[in-house]
Amino acid sequence: MPTFEVRKTDLAARLGYLKTKSGVVETPAVLPVIHPFNQIVKPIEMERMGYNALMTNSYLILKKSKAIGRTFEVHDLLNYKKTVMTDSGAYQLLEYGEVDTTPEEIINFETNIGSDIGVILDTPTGLTRNKKRAEETVSKTIDAAIRSIPLFKDKNILWTGPIQGGVFYDLIEKSAKEMSKLNFDVYALGSPTQVMEQYDLEQLLYMILAAKRNLPLDKPLHLFGAGHPLTLPIAVALGCDLFDSASYILYAKRGAYMTESGTKYLDDLKYLTCECEVCSKYFVGELKNSKDRVRLLALHNLHVLSREIKSIKQAIYEGRLWEYVAAKSRAHPRAWTAFKHFSKIKEYLGEGTPLFKSCGLYLCSTPDEHRPEVENAYKRLIRNIKINKKSLVVYFSKTNDHTFLYNLRNTFEKEVGMNSEEIQFCVAPLPIAIAPIEVCDIYPFSQYDISLPLDKEMEKMSIRKFKQFLSKYKFKKVLLIDHSNDKYKQIINWFTKEKTIQAKKVVTDRQTERILKEFTSL
Amino acid sequence: MPTFEVRKTDLAARLGYLKTKSGVVETPAVLPVIHPFNQIVKPIEMERMGYNALMTNSYLILKKSKAIGRTFEVHDLLNYKKTVMTDSGAYQLLEYGEVDTTPEEIINFETNIGSDIGVILDTPTGLTRNKKRAEETVSKTIDAAIRSIPLFKDKNILWTGPIQGGVFYDLIEKSAKEMSKLNFDVYALGSPTQVMEQYDLEQLLYMILAAKRNLPLDKPLHLFGAGHPLTLPIAVALGCDLFDSASYILYAKRGAYMTESGTKYLDDLKYLTCECEVCSKYFVGELKNSKDRVRLLALHNLHVLSREIKSIKQAIYEGRLWEYVAAKSRAHPRAWTAFKHFSKIKEYLGEGTPLFKSCGLYLCSTPDEHRPEVENAYKRLIRNIKINKKSLVVYFSKTNDHTFLYNLRNTFEKEVGMNSEEIQFCVAPLPIAIAPIEVCDIYPFSQYDISLPLDKEMEKMSIRKFKQFLSKYKFKKVLLIDHSNDKYKQIINWFTKEKTIQAKKVVTDRQTERILKEFTSL
Repeated sequence: MPTFEVRKTDLAARLGYLKTKSGVVETPAVLPVIHPFNQIVKPIEMERMGYNALMTNSYLILKKSKAIGRTFEVHDLLNYKKTVMTDSGAYQLLEYGEVDTTPEEIINFETNIGSDIGVILDTPTGLTRNKKRAEETVSKTIDAAIRSIPLFKDKNILWTGPIQGGVFYDLIEKSAKEMSKLNFDVYALGSPTQVMEQYDLEQLLYMILAAKRNLPLDKPLHLFGAGHPLTLPIAVALGCDLFDSASYILYAKRGAYMTESGTKYLDDLKYLTCECEVCSKYFVGELKNSKDRVRLLALHNLHVLSREIKSIKQAIYEGRLWEYVAAKSRAHPRAWTAFKHFSKIKEYLGEGTPLFKSCGLYLCSTPDEHRPEVENAYKRLIRNIKINKKSLVVYFSKTNDHTFLYNLRNTFEKEVGMNSEEIQFCVAPLPIAIAPIEVCDIYPFSQYDISLPLDKEMEKMSIRKFKQFLSKYKFKKVLLIDHSNDKYKQIINWFTKEKTIQAKKVVTDRQTERILKEFTSL
Repeated sequence: MPTFEVRKTDLAARLGYLKTKSGVVETPAVLPVIHPFNQIVKPIEMERMGYNALMTNSYLILKKSKAIGRTFEVHDLLNYKKTVMTDSGAYQLLEYGEVDTTPEEIINFETNIGSDIGVILDTPTGLTRNKKRAEETVSKTIDAAIRSIPLFKDKNILWTGPIQGGVFYDLIEKSAKEMSKLNFDVYALGSPTQVMEQYDLEQLLYMILAAKRNLPLDKPLHLFGAGHPLTLPIAVALGCDLFDSASYILYAKRGAYMTESGTKYLDDLKYLTCECEVCSKYFVGELKNSKDRVRLLALHNLHVLSREIKSIKQAIYEGRLWEYVAAKSRAHPRAWTAFKHFSKIKEYLGEGTPLFKSCGLYLCSTPDEHRPEVENAYKRLIRNIKINKKSLVVYFSKTNDHTFLYNLRNTFEKEVGMNSEEIQFCVAPLPIAIAPIEVCDIYPFSQYDISLPLDKEMEKMSIRKFKQFLSKYKFKKVLLIDHSNDKYKQIINWFTKEKTIQAKKVVTDRQTERILKEFTSL
């Protein structure tokens, strides 16, 4: 029985179950980071909010343990029975430059305190631009991994192998390849915290990709330190399964209130734009002046993160993750920049995207024309459809209702008889494709909603596809029926100017008799 | 003292206070519609959620009153002390074709039951395509208004004048002009329910505009029947202040769960993507099977509407309404289509948009280049800036940090001396503008974040502005410093090909000495 089971995928995201000795964690999941000895929000409260896994720091427990000369069981310490992941002290290494322990000691200690998911003592790369230094961190981490593995004696613990390399994608790739060989239960991408603090989500995207493409697909990927409501959907879409973050409390301590698209300082708020237990009880002024402010803000922030993860999971479940990420990313130029790069990694995102979906396809603006669903549908069409007819009737509509074309074909069959066999009828839900009437009820050629008129990028793509279609089948005669009310104007203009077709015409008529007349006179 | 006071505006939206005899209603506001005799969610519960005004139906109370031969006071009837708006029976007229009352009777009845905001008995146009029929409804409504006014005896009641005209914009305009003359306290746009049910938000936009442009600005505009989370932000941005909707309960009755971007059937949900009192207590399965399902769904839906209105108000307060509407609309092609039309009504939206804002300007993709803030800044620049220098140094950067250009100017002044007076230094935060260094710290020329590279529409606009700048000031010598890392490639390519400038060069150097050398050698 595998410890990680994927139930559903969309883009590179997965809905999955990770089994630990303390229970099942549904992924994607955010693990709130809690201080082992000083918790402003108690683990039991987090459990009540639906958090089935937490992250705490084994190095801090180790230090305390040494100082007072007693051992702890981590679940007892936290008064929390569900999954506890323990970090190794790498964060302290990044922050303070050194830690007073060894890889071996940490592994044994994490084992002894009963951690469910342990992390080896890695050496975070951080944001250094010094490649030599970055390379060292990768090597040190791999060395630590090799020293740690023989100590993995408790088979009930899942062990995490961190991938380092910082902003050097080749080092991340190397790191991922080497760590993969060591067969960890969980992989983790190290220390993108500083990249995220600078809001460089474009860089984060390529960091995740460099790791993900070199890691086994049947293992979850953890992203260290990600807990921002705009970062999470993008990171999940790229294939991250687990996150840990202290953002809820760090933000709270500086008076920052999380929203669906970022954080706002309490002082800039006039309204609490949330319906959680805190926000439905307090007015913004009361919250500002409360002695309990940090705690209340932390609770609220945890609710926002919980809602975010649930929304992401629901979007994967429905097959609407692309749309969800698009709408979220539209709130900030940096997130939008990262989202635009989805068009450059469409093959990667296409692997996990189902070929058929039960929900319709929404296309708003670029880069929606690069959605895996569009790519997949277009490729299927190009590969599988053969047309040997002489004439083409192509129907442009402003809706996805193709009844008119069915009726037209019937009239043609009645009136033109056998000759209608020589005519190929097609619908034109561009920028998806030009699709033969025979397949136009198959997803997504009728199951879509497109914002018209198209933007320039979508227009370009549409003309490219129209061109490809015409040049492939070399029709002698093309009749274009335009019921789009000028919504496809530029594309139809292109067609009008196109010179390779011998006989062609554009009609806007709605009377089948007249259309038939126009066709026969061509 | 005015009954409606506007505190803050953004786009055509207003944050305001409407005073009624039972209290103050902060606008924009959604008034939940409740049945006077059968309430699944009680008015007192709505009050607890923060709803300070409700809508109920005076016609239904009138019928009951006649049937049982007793009168009611509407606040007592509902057990609700805050503002109650009463509809007149026009909905029943639309649904059933007739009502058993007269305009006069309804006015007197609304007065007697103690309504805070009354509505005259109008004749809704509905979705008819028959213009003659639509014209009749406009005339009938105006007639009813004229008959009603002499009966407005209780000066404490605010009276609402409905605007009809259906989908005929000229009729809406006529209706709005005529009703304006009658000096109502509140105006209302009638019966767009069917337009909204068809999700035709583009049409709704032009309906609202036709009304709004012909109504007094100091009165609130109510939009009848709007209670969808994607419709609300768009309608508020266009200038609607009040809404009433039974959506929360209608959706609940058919098992539909409201989300931030629409509704989903409970059967399609695996997760409750909300943190309200209902969603934090139940799992989705429990909610589905609960005997109390309709009520629980209605409560949840009311929470979603409440959060939506608070988010909209916060966005107006911060001056981020454009961004808020953009992100919301990106969730559905029909909403996106409506939002794209914002570029066509930018003057209208600009009137309420402050010239200076304390938050930075976010530009993601088209139509953001048409944001009123961009339009305003560009116009101010074109009008007020005179440049009489011979040479131009223009700086393209991928961030809004212009320190480099300040330093460069200093070097030029030291090295070139007096001649540097002849050089105009500019930053190029396109698609906003080319801005002289002297004003580049003024909003928004340094207070922005732009998603780069630009999309095609933004690129086009940028080139147009660059062109206009160059042709206006006729520099003899232009040095373009490109530190954008190819992010402004197309625009710089255009510049390279541009033939009207005698001497020009593009440099990507970061060393001021070299840049100086390139400049002097020009």
